[in-house]
Amino acid sequence: MFSTVSPYTSEIASIGSDRNWKGIGISLLVIVVVCLSSACPSSALQKSDSNVYTNYLFPLDEGGKPYIIPLTVDDLFDPNFQIHDPQAKWISNEEIVFKSWDGNVWRANIHNNETSLLLKNTTFATFKASKFWVSPDLGFVLLAYDVRPVYQTSFLASYLIYNLYTREVRELNPPEVSDSVLQFASWGVQGQQLMYIFENNIYYQTDVQSSSWRLTSSGLEGIVFNGIADWLYEVEILKSPVAHWWSPDGSKLVYLTINDTEVPNMLLPRFTGALYPKGHEYPYPKMGQNNPTVSLSVVSLDGSSRTIELGPPDSFIKSEFYISMVKWVSSERVSVRWVNRAQNMSVLCLCGVSSGACTKKHVATTEKWLDRQNEEPMFSKDYATFFITMPIKHGGRGTFSHITMFSNESEDEDVNIRHLTSGSWEVTEIVAYDENLFTENGAMQRQLLQCSFYRAILSPDFQHVLLHCTGPGIPQTSLHKLSNMSNIFCEQDIPIYERRIIPINTMACMCFVAALRLELAVPVDLDEAQLHPLLLILDSAPGGQAVSELFSVGWDSVLVSSDSVIVARLDARGSGFQGQRLLHELHHRLGTVDCRTTSLLYLTRLPYIDGNRVGVYGKAYGGFLSSLMLLSHSHIFKCAVAVAPITNWRLYASAFTEKYFGPPLKDDHKYQISSLIQNFTRTNPLNFLIIHGTADENVHFQHSAELVKLLSSLNVNYTLQIFPDEGHDIVSVRSRHYMLSSVINFFRNCFVPDPEVVPESYKEDD
Amino acid sequence: MFSTVSPYTSEIASIGSDRNWKGIGISLLVIVVVCLSSACPSSALQKSDSNVYTNYLFPLDEGGKPYIIPLTVDDLFDPNFQIHDPQAKWISNEEIVFKSWDGNVWRANIHNNETSLLLKNTTFATFKASKFWVSPDLGFVLLAYDVRPVYQTSFLASYLIYNLYTREVRELNPPEVSDSVLQFASWGVQGQQLMYIFENNIYYQTDVQSSSWRLTSSGLEGIVFNGIADWLYEVEILKSPVAHWWSPDGSKLVYLTINDTEVPNMLLPRFTGALYPKGHEYPYPKMGQNNPTVSLSVVSLDGSSRTIELGPPDSFIKSEFYISMVKWVSSERVSVRWVNRAQNMSVLCLCGVSSGACTKKHVATTEKWLDRQNEEPMFSKDYATFFITMPIKHGGRGTFSHITMFSNESEDEDVNIRHLTSGSWEVTEIVAYDENLFTENGAMQRQLLQCSFYRAILSPDFQHVLLHCTGPGIPQTSLHKLSNMSNIFCEQDIPIYERRIIPINTMACMCFVAALRLELAVPVDLDEAQLHPLLLILDSAPGGQAVSELFSVGWDSVLVSSDSVIVARLDARGSGFQGQRLLHELHHRLGTVDCRTTSLLYLTRLPYIDGNRVGVYGKAYGGFLSSLMLLSHSHIFKCAVAVAPITNWRLYASAFTEKYFGPPLKDDHKYQISSLIQNFTRTNPLNFLIIHGTADENVHFQHSAELVKLLSSLNVNYTLQIFPDEGHDIVSVRSRHYMLSSVINFFRNCFVPDPEVVPESYKEDD
Repeated sequence: MFSTVSPYTSEIASIGSDRNWKGIGISLLVIVVVCLSSACPSSALQKSDSNVYTNYLFPLDEGGKPYIIPLTVDDLFDPNFQIHDPQAKWISNEEIVFKSWDGNVWRANIHNNETSLLLKNTTFATFKASKFWVSPDLGFVLLAYDVRPVYQTSFLASYLIYNLYTREVRELNPPEVSDSVLQFASWGVQGQQLMYIFENNIYYQTDVQSSSWRLTSSGLEGIVFNGIADWLYEVEILKSPVAHWWSPDGSKLVYLTINDTEVPNMLLPRFTGALYPKGHEYPYPKMGQNNPTVSLSVVSLDGSSRTIELGPPDSFIKSEFYISMVKWVSSERVSVRWVNRAQNMSVLCLCGVSSGACTKKHVATTEKWLDRQNEEPMFSKDYATFFITMPIKHGGRGTFSHITMFSNESEDEDVNIRHLTSGSWEVTEIVAYDENLFTENGAMQRQLLQCSFYRAILSPDFQHVLLHCTGPGIPQTSLHKLSNMSNIFCEQDIPIYERRIIPINTMACMCFVAALRLELAVPVDLDEAQLHPLLLILDSAPGGQAVSELFSVGWDSVLVSSDSVIVARLDARGSGFQGQRLLHELHHRLGTVDCRTTSLLYLTRLPYIDGNRVGVYGKAYGGFLSSLMLLSHSHIFKCAVAVAPITNWRLYASAFTEKYFGPPLKDDHKYQISSLIQNFTRTNPLNFLIIHGTADENVHFQHSAELVKLLSSLNVNYTLQIFPDEGHDIVSVRSRHYMLSSVINFFRNCFVPDPEVVPESYKEDD
Repeated sequence: MFSTVSPYTSEIASIGSDRNWKGIGISLLVIVVVCLSSACPSSALQKSDSNVYTNYLFPLDEGGKPYIIPLTVDDLFDPNFQIHDPQAKWISNEEIVFKSWDGNVWRANIHNNETSLLLKNTTFATFKASKFWVSPDLGFVLLAYDVRPVYQTSFLASYLIYNLYTREVRELNPPEVSDSVLQFASWGVQGQQLMYIFENNIYYQTDVQSSSWRLTSSGLEGIVFNGIADWLYEVEILKSPVAHWWSPDGSKLVYLTINDTEVPNMLLPRFTGALYPKGHEYPYPKMGQNNPTVSLSVVSLDGSSRTIELGPPDSFIKSEFYISMVKWVSSERVSVRWVNRAQNMSVLCLCGVSSGACTKKHVATTEKWLDRQNEEPMFSKDYATFFITMPIKHGGRGTFSHITMFSNESEDEDVNIRHLTSGSWEVTEIVAYDENLFTENGAMQRQLLQCSFYRAILSPDFQHVLLHCTGPGIPQTSLHKLSNMSNIFCEQDIPIYERRIIPINTMACMCFVAALRLELAVPVDLDEAQLHPLLLILDSAPGGQAVSELFSVGWDSVLVSSDSVIVARLDARGSGFQGQRLLHELHHRLGTVDCRTTSLLYLTRLPYIDGNRVGVYGKAYGGFLSSLMLLSHSHIFKCAVAVAPITNWRLYASAFTEKYFGPPLKDDHKYQISSLIQNFTRTNPLNFLIIHGTADENVHFQHSAELVKLLSSLNVNYTLQIFPDEGHDIVSVRSRHYMLSSVINFFRNCFVPDPEVVPESYKEDD
């Protein structure tokens, strides 16, 4: 049985339940399984009670109604509101390790509920450590300190190895180096196996006591990366800084070598903190520029350091490609996906790590572009059967990702293809494939889960699952027995707002395609006799490219709760090929924006929405859209916020831009906001807030700089809020607080009702 | 007779009188001769009719009253309002060359008023040239095109030589180089002598036809500069990019070699205009950092290229020094001023260029610091007499710069010192020294000139003077016969505002010292029965360090004219040692700011000033003061604008900062705005606009970045307006328009009267 996660389970425990937050129901909207219950209705907008969800936060009063205390920005930063991530991990079929709210690390047996203290919170304080990993043999803890973020999730740190029995501490350093700063470090999969990356080379230790071997030697700082991603692979291709994979038995390591020699460097300036601040240069291939080259190798950890390269399929040898997915299938086979640079063709291979020989298992092609290319296939133990998701057409509503089974009993036999799921919903992740369950219970089951799982970590024997639930409701981690799991809900608290799913009528539907959800957050005590301002939030990018930080979601709850603003989300994230089709339309014409605004007009017909007070917010790709909407439709929008907006696609990353726009054309027309707003006419003074960190490594500050130059030349008012030396996500608490306050105050000012003007003619009549 | 300029003259002609501007009376406040007519009165502020000056702009109506049309920002950019600089130059005792409004270049005889067309405006258009210089023999014109600013006044350009007779054109290129971009090019002083600077080396041509010789070879791009200044010498020491000087007969060239090898580089990032914008690094010594070393050489232009170094005085050999002034006295002698790094000791020498031997003529020392060290001495032909300005004490009112004569008939004789001028006013420049006039008419004459001369260019025989008058009134160039010049006024137009000099009472006087002028600009139709908002403008820096661009002065006229704002200027510029004393007080305590605000309180007692609507504006050093005033006295100021503010003196240039603060101390306390506002308490929401170009090469953007971080951490509201890739002066017209509009709108919003609030108690009584 494979599970998406499947429904045979029920909650058996809540992890880290000593959390002390008072709770805040934040809807992260990271929907794993999306199912639209009805086809496009021909009716206009209507409120449907069955589509109302409520987030609870506050205690009830005597009459059963909640006490509603308006949420403030300060609440978002209140330590009591911080959400605790227990960093729970399986250490065996029966045991997990997790960090409780107070910082102690516990080992817990899920059968007998026995717990034992593994590491005291004071140990973290002593070593100023902020991250920990327990060794496979449970004897040691790897502690990271002086953690400094690099790109989206990568970080530099120094490491200590803490002996849980003797409490001895030793530094983790490459041979002949002291006080080293490592790019990565982790335990292996057996005993005390350790690996780390230093100066772009991989080092390995068989155990804590032994000395390190250097497994690679080609590493060159900022140029050739072994086992760790460069910017492009971390943010756009692998979506992780980890570019190495342990074989299940720990005997081998597969790793990428990413060569950025030919990639142009981008300069991130630095302004503060030194008399002569120096900038930081790093390879960043923009649209049409030289990409890194990549190769895949297997190295034996038996002492021989024998290394075999796993070459690309013949069709890729002479062309540019990405390696978008690597996954061990057994200790002898690894599955790899190669994707051409245009991202309209990919080859899934199964490679023998002893011979280095790869066989094609599946070739995907499209006239548009391929998405989800770092999704892992699930292979049966005999390699004869595997499961991937594929776009399946569903009537006139476009294609949806569904699980497809490929099987051939022998190499000569034809491949047998079966679509296991179907419908106008999407499978976003195949979490695991359990042959026993599958043979026992062949029936396909699927379920609309109210909880959006951010992480679902199955126990090694697939009997239990650790669910890190991020919304709706309060993010929390819980433990479930798979065989007993029927329906999972995140903890629901007292409402701070009410969610309403708005059915979209046919006309709007043509724009949004079926999978796009239009969702409203309205105040729980909504007075429908009054007109409320409307804030449209455009989530980041199609295909779930950027994961919003928690509080970038929370700020709008303040507006709903304290200012009775209605927040509408057009969620393009996780919508798979629909999102692509949407963007593809944008490529050819401005239709998307027109469609979105068209549907907004439908929204403003709701009796409780004030069509004269409509604002829009977007970040990165969403910032591109919000800028465009304000500048193209200034009569609809009273104000807009663009955070780190992309304003010229030529300046953005190759892998992302080329996927949607194809190879660069000489005609600049389609790439630049300046071209897209060529019909801009200033009908009224614009109210436009642009926010950008000057050290944004993802959407470079140059985007906003170019936008600001454009706005100056059009004599358009704007306010630019910069955060010196902050990156794509504003990290420092003070800056983040300042930013969220600015955004909220901006919309508050924007949403102040205009004083009622008595028309001149009335006056004359008097 | 030397003239400062002297009063024996009257206007005989107006140059370039075909200007078609409608005129705008802009007071540039660059006062050459400052004379305060009265000592500090003990009375409080009073309006004195004798201290009222009016600038005229608009035509009179039938009743003799001017039509007052409010000035707008757009007016400032109206081509009809642009002020024409005829670039007038003497080419002989009788002839000048100037460019008329329509772009034609004329040669004019001042005696018979005959004119002849030298260069058609179409020639400039053909070659896209923007600057021109006529050769000494009047046969050729040097035309610069593709002019790109470097620092304050330096620029890169390509050059053409245009033959006025044959209309032939040739490019000016170093040997074996084509399409060169030169750092400097100019005619010499005789015939067709030409010199230019390429890759930091000096090249010389005896005439247009001949080939170039390279006079120096040590030049290294961005490191060793020959004949041209690095940033520090251009902006802080010489106040000019020219670091070479022709001997009067054109037979030799003296030049500086500035070596920046040990000077740290500052990075100016670039954001726009390229896929991968690169930053620009250039040597910029911050306070206490390594300074450039400098040497002075004389090279013979007789073909031998014989070069002699003119060494520093013995006392300077082993220490750091600046060369702040070089001036030829005859074709055999050059005067040079060496200044120690601390800028409290300087030596004026007279050097023989054949022998290289220098003799000390004057040593200046001070307990504080020396100012005006690039002022040129005037020597008699026999070198026995010379004139410099020196600070002379005037009672209790501090010291003022006055002309002092040093003479010794023979080397053995004692030096005879005579102070030729005295009083509570300052000589700012000795324009020329004419031995004939001096012997004819020994009496000292001085005059308060209503016109502030920006440039006074005497004819070679000292009989006439070209005056480029920059204010008050409309900037214009005029020609005067010195012997007939009695009183010069710039052209006065219809008023857009009225200037009032406010006598400051004793208490305020203690702060301002006598030489500081408090000047008000009030609307011409001021209704004294109404309360008006007050805007305090803090001009840039003491000692006239930064010359404000024309329109950075004009914007406040819009507020006076259109919004009835009263603008107060505390002009510290040109106030010589008083300005220094003022700043010196700032060094030890915050007294200055307190004093300025104290005097502001006096201002707000004027019956027509609204003490609840007071704003402050300052740039660079003024931005430091305005930030400090707002943050330290938020109860006095409703709003503040800081343009390119200095926020930490450790980040500013060595030569400037060390002069006023002395060598760096370990205690950071005195250098940072963050320390200076340590008693900051937020009494009301602040209204603070910070404006900065990100490529500011003078006050680096890091100043504002640090300020913004500070304000975020204090949770203080601010608005930051950045201009991507603009420098210290916002150059592009669109950006400048945007900036001025922003500043004006900011103050307009700030100055909206608060709605009258009925006190709570009144309501209760009802």
